[in-house]
Amino acid sequence: MPVRDEELKLLNEHLLQMAGLVERSIRDSIRSLTERDSTLARKVIEEDHKINTYDVKIDEECIRLLALKQPMGKDLRFITTAMKITTDLERIADNAVNIAERALELNEEPLLKPYIDIPRMREIAQGMIRDAINAFINEDKKLAMDVIMRDDEVDDLNQMVFEELMFIMTQDPSTVSRAIKISFVSKYLERIADHATNIAEMVVYMVEGRIIRHMVPNEIETS
Amino acid sequence: MPVRDEELKLLNEHLLQMAGLVERSIRDSIRSLTERDSTLARKVIEEDHKINTYDVKIDEECIRLLALKQPMGKDLRFITTAMKITTDLERIADNAVNIAERALELNEEPLLKPYIDIPRMREIAQGMIRDAINAFINEDKKLAMDVIMRDDEVDDLNQMVFEELMFIMTQDPSTVSRAIKISFVSKYLERIADHATNIAEMVVYMVEGRIIRHMVPNEIETS
Repeated sequence: MPVRDEELKLLNEHLLQMAGLVERSIRDSIRSLTERDSTLARKVIEEDHKINTYDVKIDEECIRLLALKQPMGKDLRFITTAMKITTDLERIADNAVNIAERALELNEEPLLKPYIDIPRMREIAQGMIRDAINAFINEDKKLAMDVIMRDDEVDDLNQMVFEELMFIMTQDPSTVSRAIKISFVSKYLERIADHATNIAEMVVYMVEGRIIRHMVPNEIETS
Repeated sequence: MPVRDEELKLLNEHLLQMAGLVERSIRDSIRSLTERDSTLARKVIEEDHKINTYDVKIDEECIRLLALKQPMGKDLRFITTAMKITTDLERIADNAVNIAERALELNEEPLLKPYIDIPRMREIAQGMIRDAINAFINEDKKLAMDVIMRDDEVDDLNQMVFEELMFIMTQDPSTVSRAIKISFVSKYLERIADHATNIAEMVVYMVEGRIIRHMVPNEIETS
């Protein structure tokens, strides 16, 4: 970890705590679906406010650091990036709440089919968040690039899930309502991976001062 | 408009220009669908890079202002809020690109039914963006609150569109592929309205120093 003063270290700690809660929220939302555990789904929804509190707290902390310490160069970019990252983390948690809401509905209906690709997507997306935050704190460009590369895997899985569900719906219209809810869950996971990718792009941008955010993966590797 | 120095005025101008491009992108993406104009859809997709350029440019401008002017109090919050707003604007434009992509696909297939609610959603969502940006520049809390209130209208229309499409799919499985693409367009518009709401919430927060971001509408009105 780069040398930082006590206040920046505290900011890191709070970010890690927030990311930990967000990861748990994703894991529990998918478990509430695969294990048909509506109590767990309700817990995810009820505890979202804790993540919101971190968002506001870290934002305030960053504003205070900017005002009091008037940081320059690297520290300045670190703090403004932290402010943007919390927004992404908070929206990731909103997607976990959306998954839990769909789980509550799906748990009331018969199981359409066992969930195979969705837990896999969850695993990749959650790892992407963890690595994106670690890449930020350690200013680890290589790890951030690695997160960006993994986004395609989640996109492909989402496409596969979607096509399979479309096929099921076309074969049997009585499945439409459930299939659409499952396709939403898959879409929420894809969006979670997108947010993790956004975070990783901001990290590369911060470390390199290079405009990576609006490049395609190929340009990133070769430029 | 509050009194501001030349550099902050320039920042406002760039934000307004970016928001103008984003609004046009939304309008054109929906027109490409309702008028079945695939050339226009491709234009929306191709010109998205202009909006990305603004995102990076405004971000750099804010970092420079923070480093050189070391602003305090109101100006500090104004600049950090601008940095967050550009992220939302850029993602709104991504949703317009997604709409254009679905339009390209839908324009290749027979029309499922005339679009009535979707143009209405577009109109509301676009107005929300315009007003959210104006609320930011003029520090107009009342206008920002008004934007937040309008989000429910878009949510309700999205729900209506979705239920209608579900009914159509259940009646006739041959419509599934088209109906799902239309439901995605509706969902993208709903997400655009969510981003406008996020911007408006940040404006209220900036003006009032009050934590509005994680309240429900009722709490906002009465607190």
